[in-house]
Amino acid sequence: MKTKAYANHAPNQPLSLFHFDRRELRDDDIEFDVLFCGVCHSDLHHVAGDWKTNYPCVPGHEIVGRVSKIGKNVTQFKIGDAVAVGCMVDSCQHCRPCLNQLEQYCEEGATFTYNDTDRQDKQATFGGYSERMVVREKFALHVPEHLDLAAAAPLLCAGITVYSPLKHWKVQAGSKVGIIGLGGLGHMAIKLARAMGAEVTLFSRSPDKAEDAQRLGAHHIVLSSDKTQMKAVANTLDVIIDTVPYAHDLQPYLQTLTLDGTLVLVGLIDKIEPSFNSAPLVLGRRSVAGSLIGGIAETQEMLNFCGQHNIVSDIELIPIQEINHAYERMLKSDVKYRFVIDMSSLKQESL
Amino acid sequence: MKTKAYANHAPNQPLSLFHFDRRELRDDDIEFDVLFCGVCHSDLHHVAGDWKTNYPCVPGHEIVGRVSKIGKNVTQFKIGDAVAVGCMVDSCQHCRPCLNQLEQYCEEGATFTYNDTDRQDKQATFGGYSERMVVREKFALHVPEHLDLAAAAPLLCAGITVYSPLKHWKVQAGSKVGIIGLGGLGHMAIKLARAMGAEVTLFSRSPDKAEDAQRLGAHHIVLSSDKTQMKAVANTLDVIIDTVPYAHDLQPYLQTLTLDGTLVLVGLIDKIEPSFNSAPLVLGRRSVAGSLIGGIAETQEMLNFCGQHNIVSDIELIPIQEINHAYERMLKSDVKYRFVIDMSSLKQESL
Ligand SMILES: [Zn+2]
Ligand SMILES: [Zn+2]
Ligand SMILES: [Zn+2]
Ligand SMILES: [Zn+2]
Repeated sequence: MKTKAYANHAPNQPLSLFHFDRRELRDDDIEFDVLFCGVCHSDLHHVAGDWKTNYPCVPGHEIVGRVSKIGKNVTQFKIGDAVAVGCMVDSCQHCRPCLNQLEQYCEEGATFTYNDTDRQDKQATFGGYSERMVVREKFALHVPEHLDLAAAAPLLCAGITVYSPLKHWKVQAGSKVGIIGLGGLGHMAIKLARAMGAEVTLFSRSPDKAEDAQRLGAHHIVLSSDKTQMKAVANTLDVIIDTVPYAHDLQPYLQTLTLDGTLVLVGLIDKIEPSFNSAPLVLGRRSVAGSLIGGIAETQEMLNFCGQHNIVSDIELIPIQEINHAYERMLKSDVKYRFVIDMSSLKQESL
Repeated sequence: MKTKAYANHAPNQPLSLFHFDRRELRDDDIEFDVLFCGVCHSDLHHVAGDWKTNYPCVPGHEIVGRVSKIGKNVTQFKIGDAVAVGCMVDSCQHCRPCLNQLEQYCEEGATFTYNDTDRQDKQATFGGYSERMVVREKFALHVPEHLDLAAAAPLLCAGITVYSPLKHWKVQAGSKVGIIGLGGLGHMAIKLARAMGAEVTLFSRSPDKAEDAQRLGAHHIVLSSDKTQMKAVANTLDVIIDTVPYAHDLQPYLQTLTLDGTLVLVGLIDKIEPSFNSAPLVLGRRSVAGSLIGGIAETQEMLNFCGQHNIVSDIELIPIQEINHAYERMLKSDVKYRFVIDMSSLKQESL
């Protein structure tokens, strides 16, 4: 089915109008009209060609819409339902991680929502910067209807990326959680950790973020450049969610972890530079770990949790025609805190 | 009480005969004659002055002996018992780690067996390269009588240092455990992990260690320099105990961990160099952690476990007069696998 979209065609080229054929509905597929699509930092990486990109590339993996068609074996969705798709659209379904509902760690490789290859027809996958999606029911999620659907879109990547490690490392009422970085992921981490009952500390490099951090739910803000403030929180945090997407020094944060505390990298897939000294690990049985998005069942759990606690992202809604400008602003961290594309803006474009 | 010992008096100076006064027995103390004392790598560091050393320094924290006197409140030991002391002789006893039997992580700092200060009389602590020890009963351990007491001495540091993380990271029958480095710690890790029912893989840089590793209990040996061998064990290990005491590249080992696997540093308290890439952490929820010796209750548990499984260290027994030569050989890793001092050799020395 002919589908309008925005794509880029070569590294670092601007996105522009494009069309392609979405596959016809399979028996276990649903089709939906894309209403909103969040703009994730990994979209920038793909567009820049930082990660082996196949062009043309239609980014977008924070996708919310309404079901327009269902395959004959579909049982969990009906036409008109609010529906969402995140970073994955399929996986092998039989490896140990898949059987443990950890499809993001599928041993054969999950099928990602864009810049990947469909497991059945071997065609390229195209993301949510498009007018419609066709997706296997098992990888489609229900969005609580009372949430703002535009602001819910970033939950599908930014939200689950921080929710999953918070749950895995057992954050609960009374836990002390540190968050490094106040961007798309960081602001969601504050909201989610707060809703889980944690005492939340934001580490920031700039004092002007204090007010916003408090509004979002942080109990404390610590200037990471201020040694006195850093020392005051030494040995206090059970878990730190480190959302910073570029190389940075982990050393000052390790001391703020308590015995058996863990710093979880969720934004950095790169060399850890500068290197750090193992003393805080050995002398306090601390860990440095990483975490990747979340499984499908856990993503649904997160959406339900957000429904219960009325949690969505703070967003700037833009028409698709502003996507290239939005990317420029993201490179300067000039967004509070996530761009979401109003996909109705695509209707005015004609091929 | 006047006590003969071997001490060094300045950085990198040889050890020589020395005497000092051991404190008189307190009501909750035991006194014992030192029979054997293991020689640990940290003894070398202290003697070299790498870690703030107060001189004179009497090293030794793998100490086995027989009880010669007991204070009037002592209930768990009687004269003639086999007794051992490891790295700690006291701690605050009221902080959270102490209350959780993790005295090694005492928030006020455990009192170490040597190069530290007694909490009551503020006198320097002197270690096991001496004819007798006086120690608080709570920090003294029972040694199963049927074990070779000389070969049991290294259990008190090398043994517990690897036993504790194996237990903490839940190694049990069927676990897959990797060990990096075949020295004092590494050879104990093989024996202990094997006795816990794990499938044990030794990573080594030299193929000539294969036979010995198998004799010690390793099921597999992997040449860490051989990319094909390393690839063959990718994604297989639940826990890796990294015993290497100098900076080394962690990157090749991270890929051998399974989903949720942990590499535990027990030998390195230094900069992790070269730095490593976080991709294996993020893409497989793996962790890099550290661990320090073990608590007193856990050390007793380890000694009992070794008693049940007839586990001791492989040692070279030396007279105290050879200690300086032994240090030279340790710097070349020329020992299988632990030097233990036969402290009866001190009797022939006169002040
Ligand atoms: Zn994303
Ligand atoms: Zn799978
Ligand atoms: Zn030691
Ligand atoms: Zn304590």
